[in-house]
Amino acid sequence: MTEKNEVRTEENKVISPVVIKRLPRYYRYLGELLKNDVIRISSKELSKKMNVTASQIRQDLNNFGGFGQQGYGYNVEYLYNEIGKILGLDHINNIVIIGAGNLGQALANNQEFDSNGFKIIGLFDVNPRLIGMTVRGVEVYDIDVLEDFLKENDVMIAALTLPASKAIKVAGELADLGIKAFWNFAPVDLNLPEDVIVENVHLAESIMTLSYRIHSK
Amino acid sequence: MTEKNEVRTEENKVISPVVIKRLPRYYRYLGELLKNDVIRISSKELSKKMNVTASQIRQDLNNFGGFGQQGYGYNVEYLYNEIGKILGLDHINNIVIIGAGNLGQALANNQEFDSNGFKIIGLFDVNPRLIGMTVRGVEVYDIDVLEDFLKENDVMIAALTLPASKAIKVAGELADLGIKAFWNFAPVDLNLPEDVIVENVHLAESIMTLSYRIHSK
Repeated sequence: MTEKNEVRTEENKVISPVVIKRLPRYYRYLGELLKNDVIRISSKELSKKMNVTASQIRQDLNNFGGFGQQGYGYNVEYLYNEIGKILGLDHINNIVIIGAGNLGQALANNQEFDSNGFKIIGLFDVNPRLIGMTVRGVEVYDIDVLEDFLKENDVMIAALTLPASKAIKVAGELADLGIKAFWNFAPVDLNLPEDVIVENVHLAESIMTLSYRIHSK
Repeated sequence: MTEKNEVRTEENKVISPVVIKRLPRYYRYLGELLKNDVIRISSKELSKKMNVTASQIRQDLNNFGGFGQQGYGYNVEYLYNEIGKILGLDHINNIVIIGAGNLGQALANNQEFDSNGFKIIGLFDVNPRLIGMTVRGVEVYDIDVLEDFLKENDVMIAALTLPASKAIKVAGELADLGIKAFWNFAPVDLNLPEDVIVENVHLAESIMTLSYRIHSK
């Protein structure tokens, strides 16, 4: 990749960040089609399903090739795999979850992640009542063994599902131990070094956006 | 409000949607300052805390007035309240949670919502093992009583924390019963009537975005 945010397909075509943002949704729909043994789909059919214009879909997906002559439609499996590669889902992305409360357990229980190249390999907590239990086969470990765990396992992402009051300190320690990507559910800004990637899921901000949309109608 | 997406302050000034998107974060920071008894803050101090340029902050917050002469800083409480009003947080927004599994319980346990004008007044599930339990004082009801519950209570928002396979049907039924706003955690598009507001929290799409950012570095 030559520039930040720039992606090239195998044919070395540049894909814009705006298209990239739409890819997870295409990926989800194509995955459903694949599950239902659909081999080819036209942009018109996909458009109806996804509630996006057919021309938008054609523009977006033409970035990836993978279509026959006009009117023949897209090869579902090919497109699914190409988009998966762009999203890095052809790797196994190991995840640890820090905080094994309801939210951490909800993430560990979410089967959607498994099928998409993500693997939750451990939950960590300070609460003795949680340590030792398993969630869908994944063990909850004492947070004291996290450092050793990170040495022995190739962890790509740390999900932070712990209280805001602890998140900044723990994230800093994890970054020092080499974690370069955080999926942060704590309602704080982590302020980590520039080369560390943070994807925030701020639930309170999401519901405030909803509230704004209700009351501004 | 005269146009869709357009907001006016009490002085009838228009605020752009881009500014609106940043408001929940300002609201969070101002709330923290208020909790720490900070009465006034300069754009420079706020800028350092929030990692946004001071000139951005001045531009954004000047929409709301609420500042004295230059160099005097912003009145924290006034700004906090004004932003809260724009976001509709001066109303009590009653929420029901459909699906009382880990994720539904995590939402019910999140104290952040209470202090921001949201009130979770009931969880609903089909699972007899969950019905009758309480989460932070909020009861889990049989989903069969939901229709009556909605008649007796003024419910603003339904949070959907149930499996994707059930979400579309349940959302349709709730919309028929008059619910106009959904906070949707199920990984499906709900396809509801145009006047219904949907705020999606698609966790799989969020982690795919993170994965993309990791692998495109």
